[in-house]
Parts: sequence; structure tokens; C-alpha cells
Amino acid sequence: MTNYRMLIQYDGTRYNGWQKQGDTDNTIQQKLETILARMTGEQVDVHGAGRTDAGVHARGQVAQFRLSEERSPKEILAYINEYLPDDIGVLSVDIAGPRFHSRFNATRKIYLYRIGKNKAAHVFDRKYIYEYRGVLDTAAMKVATIQLRGEHDFRSFCGNPRMRKSTVRNLYAIHIRETEDEIDLEFIGEGFLQYMVRILVGTLIEVGEGRRDPLSMDALLEARDRTMAGPTAPACGLTLMQVDYN
Amino acid sequence: MTNYRMLIQYDGTRYNGWQKQGDTDNTIQQKLETILARMTGEQVDVHGAGRTDAGVHARGQVAQFRLSEERSPKEILAYINEYLPDDIGVLSVDIAGPRFHSRFNATRKIYLYRIGKNKAAHVFDRKYIYEYRGVLDTAAMKVATIQLRGEHDFRSFCGNPRMRKSTVRNLYAIHIRETEDEIDLEFIGEGFLQYMVRILVGTLIEVGEGRRDPLSMDALLEARDRTMAGPTAPACGLTLMQVDYN
Repeated sequence: MTNYRMLIQYDGTRYNGWQKQGDTDNTIQQKLETILARMTGEQVDVHGAGRTDAGVHARGQVAQFRLSEERSPKEILAYINEYLPDDIGVLSVDIAGPRFHSRFNATRKIYLYRIGKNKAAHVFDRKYIYEYRGVLDTAAMKVATIQLRGEHDFRSFCGNPRMRKSTVRNLYAIHIRETEDEIDLEFIGEGFLQYMVRILVGTLIEVGEGRRDPLSMDALLEARDRTMAGPTAPACGLTLMQVDYN
Repeated sequence: MTNYRMLIQYDGTRYNGWQKQGDTDNTIQQKLETILARMTGEQVDVHGAGRTDAGVHARGQVAQFRLSEERSPKEILAYINEYLPDDIGVLSVDIAGPRFHSRFNATRKIYLYRIGKNKAAHVFDRKYIYEYRGVLDTAAMKVATIQLRGEHDFRSFCGNPRMRKSTVRNLYAIHIRETEDEIDLEFIGEGFLQYMVRILVGTLIEVGEGRRDPLSMDALLEARDRTMAGPTAPACGLTLMQVDYN
């Protein structure tokens, strides 16, 4: 078996997310597996580094798969892109070490959440931005990120109420950048729980609205209670930008 | 009457172009006129600087209109953007001099035509690029632009066979820039005939394919015959970038 690694980008607008789910065939993973099965005549499992939710985009998703017969990365790249729809693109295919696993070996992921302040300015990016109507105090939002940074139990920010595994994660950084038409929130962490970035954004928006104390994040983390955090921000604003490995 | 000038951008994908045409109401001009009529209770004529064709985009279209009752540009801007669909955005509204006319006073227009070489790289821009399959010799294309530059009768590059007015135009420059995934053609001129940029692109692509001599442009201009030029390149790759005034 040869192990391959690929870099993928997609506009998640019309997909049910990365991961295949039973009968639903409208996922990025399934599109890739179907094409690789057609190419090789065998069933191929494609493992993504980040299981992005329905409607979430990716500019730097990493995935990995094994083929029983070795083929050149160039041939695989051309074949897959030939059959993929226009809203999914494989940027590169490489042979990976035999033990490489796109998810377990990932050491760092970067997500970007884009909040728009002026929809007229985002005609060409409109599907990748959450247009917010109102004024956000980004200084207060930045204060709130201080308590959120670092290793914590993020159960309050976990969208899966039946999560049995550890909800402890290390959130290395949250960067907030504001321009005239947009507020960008960049999240850098070792890994993220389901909906974690979007619940963080929903909570930070409430801070920016003045409806939540920027210094209440410690208490919110300690509560370990999803109902105490803000709403899950819309999927369209979120993009998986990068996955790093050692 | 107060004269207003506005800067507009749009994704032209789902429109029948800028200019209203009889009963067809799916044009950018008509969308703007309908909203201004609702706002003011009077019929408003909106004049665009460039009459972009169906499927062509704009990042810097300029338009002008007159209102019998003066309103603040800020109020007009907010009202129009409130009612415009997401794929059209007004970036600014200003009061213009009484004699300003967006089309007659324009001294320079810049159009950009994007040719993609790798659709996998253009997942997020896919609606604004013409993906070309094949290899283009951009050095030959650059040679061809030398004879095209300057003031000529561009009848060979005019899409309207019944054009009665002068087909002489001054094409100040054509810049061709190639990156790994894309070839960009920028056209700077005092004005353009119907389909002129797209016919120039279709002709330059034939030069890039080696099917047309890069030094045959003089003869092609002299022929004054549309059937001698290349095909009209697809609308999706074209964007009106900028309109300049003195």
C-alpha cells in the first residue's frame, strides 16, 4: 500500500460538510472517494485533517489515502481534478510516509472567520463572509480572547452534547483584525471540537455587542456548559486555512 | 435637479448585462432604477459608463442619475444597498457637477480578462475566470499587442454588424501578466466597441495557440471585417475594473 497526502480547497456552500454520513452522498469526502474508486477499481478511504461542517469552506484541507497499486502523484492529481466539480480543487498530491495520518499527525490548525460590515463591498466574496448588521467593539472582543487562549476544557464551546472524549484543547492564539469593511478572526489551535470555532465567534460577537463581559470567559470555561456560551455563528463565514504537521 | 455619481460593483453571472432591454428586467440598470423609483416616487434614469454585456462583471462601474429633490448621498447609498441583491453593491454615492455624464465624460476605461490555467486553483474565483485547457504562448501574445495598441479602426473587433458610428478607438495599452495558474489581460482604452475586449481576447488566444501570426494584427485591423478576427471569448472572464474622468 502506498500512502498519499493531498491538499484540497473547496467552497463548502452546497455540501453537507467534509465527512460522509450514511446515505447522504453530498460530502467532500464522498466526492473524492468516488473518483478514486473509479480510478483504481478499489474502495479508497480518504481521511481529512479537519472534519469541516456543512457550509464551511477550506483553503488548506489536508487528506490522506492509501492505494494498493502505486501511481504517480501527478497522474492522481490530474485524474481527480478532471472529475471534481468546480467548487472543489485538489492543489497537490504527494507520497507520504507509510505511517502518516492526516488527522492524528496534525499539530496545528488555522481557521479564519470573516465577519462582514458592508455587504456592498463583498459582492465577489459574499459566500465566504457572514454579513453582520450592527457595530462590534473589537477592543472588547480582543480582551475576551486573553482568557480563552491556552489549554482549557472547552466543553462550553462544544456542539456535541454527547461528546465522551476529552474536551480539553490547546488554543494557541486568536487574532482579531479589523478593516473598514470586515472583521477577521483567526483561530490557531492544536485541534478543535465540533462547532468550537463558530461557538467562540458567536460568543465573541456577544462581547462585541456589549451584551457579555469580556472578562467573563474564565467563568464560562469553568461552567463546562454549552448553554452558557453564545450561539453558533453561521457556517458560511468559516474557512479552514491551514493544517500543519511536524 | 441634483446630479449624482455612484461607484458600483457586481457579479454579472446571473444578469443580462448592464443595460435594460425592453421587457427584460434582469439587468443591473433596471435593478438600480427600480430601487431609486421606489425611494423617490419618480422615474429615475441611471446611466452607466460602460454597458457591460450579459455575464460580464464590474468592480468599478460608474453611473449617474438625477433626482428632482436633493437627498444626502449617505441616505441614497444606504437605501440602495438595503434593497439590492447580494451580487450587486454600490460602493459610494456623491453629488456630481450638473453637467457630469458618466459615459460621455469618461476618458479612460480599464477592463481585465482572466484566463485560468488550473481550475483546481480557482475554486473561490471560478465565476470570474475563463478556464482554458491548453498551453498559450504569452510571449507571442505580447508581440501581437504591439500592433493592436494605439488609435485604429477596430471594426474587425466590433460585435455589432450594424454599427453606423465610428469604430475608431484609441487602445492605450494591453498588459499581459502570467502567473502559475492564470494569464491576466488588462485593456486600457478611451472606450470600447461592443464585444471588443472579448474579440481581442479570442484573437490573442489564437495567437497564443500558434494558430495566428502575432504580426498579422495590422492586416486584421485593415480588413475591417469581423469574420477575420477570432471568436468572442466567454463573458465570465471579463471585469470592468475602473473608469477614469478628467
